[in-house]
Amino acid sequence: MSEAGAGTRGRGPGRRPGPTETREKILAAARDLFAEKGYDGASLRAIARAAQVDPALVHHFFGNKEGVFVEAMRFPVDPSVLLPHIMSFPRDRIGEAMVRTFLQVWGDEDRRAPMLAMLRSAMTNERAVVLLREFVTSALFGRASQATEAAPLAIQAAAGQMIGLMILRYVLCVEPLASASEDELVELVAPTLQRYLAS
Amino acid sequence: MSEAGAGTRGRGPGRRPGPTETREKILAAARDLFAEKGYDGASLRAIARAAQVDPALVHHFFGNKEGVFVEAMRFPVDPSVLLPHIMSFPRDRIGEAMVRTFLQVWGDEDRRAPMLAMLRSAMTNERAVVLLREFVTSALFGRASQATEAAPLAIQAAAGQMIGLMILRYVLCVEPLASASEDELVELVAPTLQRYLAS
Repeated sequence: MSEAGAGTRGRGPGRRPGPTETREKILAAARDLFAEKGYDGASLRAIARAAQVDPALVHHFFGNKEGVFVEAMRFPVDPSVLLPHIMSFPRDRIGEAMVRTFLQVWGDEDRRAPMLAMLRSAMTNERAVVLLREFVTSALFGRASQATEAAPLAIQAAAGQMIGLMILRYVLCVEPLASASEDELVELVAPTLQRYLAS
Repeated sequence: MSEAGAGTRGRGPGRRPGPTETREKILAAARDLFAEKGYDGASLRAIARAAQVDPALVHHFFGNKEGVFVEAMRFPVDPSVLLPHIMSFPRDRIGEAMVRTFLQVWGDEDRRAPMLAMLRSAMTNERAVVLLREFVTSALFGRASQATEAAPLAIQAAAGQMIGLMILRYVLCVEPLASASEDELVELVAPTLQRYLAS
């Protein structure tokens, strides 16, 4: 497997082996630490320690903690993949498609952790709020509005429905929501999303 | 104004002046500190310092930090007041009543802070999750289900809609949601809640 030139930024020809693995190792450690400690609680030094690399390497790849955060908080499913997937459903089943897609992403613990880390950071840190707001506004809401032709406000109401539902199901774990099946939740919530996204 | 016997717990006849004010001062400081630092970040000592009382007094009134948290995280509007208010609307306007009530409570910064503190604590601390889950399950969802005769799952879907919307509006402050008027949000979201609560 050649890693040459892949995954490095700026300085140097990047011919040393393994920069991609190192970068991914740092991001994985950062996701875990942001998930556990929030934005303020996870220091760049602690991220380096968890990734078993020199802090200078983290600086080299990402500049500063914000840089690590922006990269690490990327949705585990890229919106540019997720949205076309949802839009590939017939228009009258787009609400159902959104519920099923959210449940599948959030149901996977490895993909849930970075999303919870984002939310947690946004709720404890003003800079993280700004970062996350910029991210969701451009990468999610903007694209979703273009794709569905729904008004931005309606897109945000749909997003709010799913965010709140996911918090109650996976963070607070309230019953019966935490144990409800995918089909039960589709029956319950899909008509709501359908109305917001395609009415 | 007589304070005798009011607001004290256990030990002593509570005849010393001002226990209610002291108790409220501690709770107000605790709310601010939980809002700012989350459950783990706010120490009992720091709460006492912010309330300008001796830490022993905090112990006396509330036992431990959990005790302070349970009291401090109480909804600023008691569910036993809030729910009858919502239920006083005609049944075909119950969705609208819920949206307006939530917006009025969350729109008031003094009432929003303790609710954000709860959410934040729940997202960073396992014990806070348990406490909050017990609270919302018994004090909110149970009562709402009884009052509306809606299924618990539908009540939770309605709550999820409002929680997510409030996070996007007041925490992330995404536009146009952050600047939308009460009437715009009623038009957008009330039909959703109406369907969950009374269909």
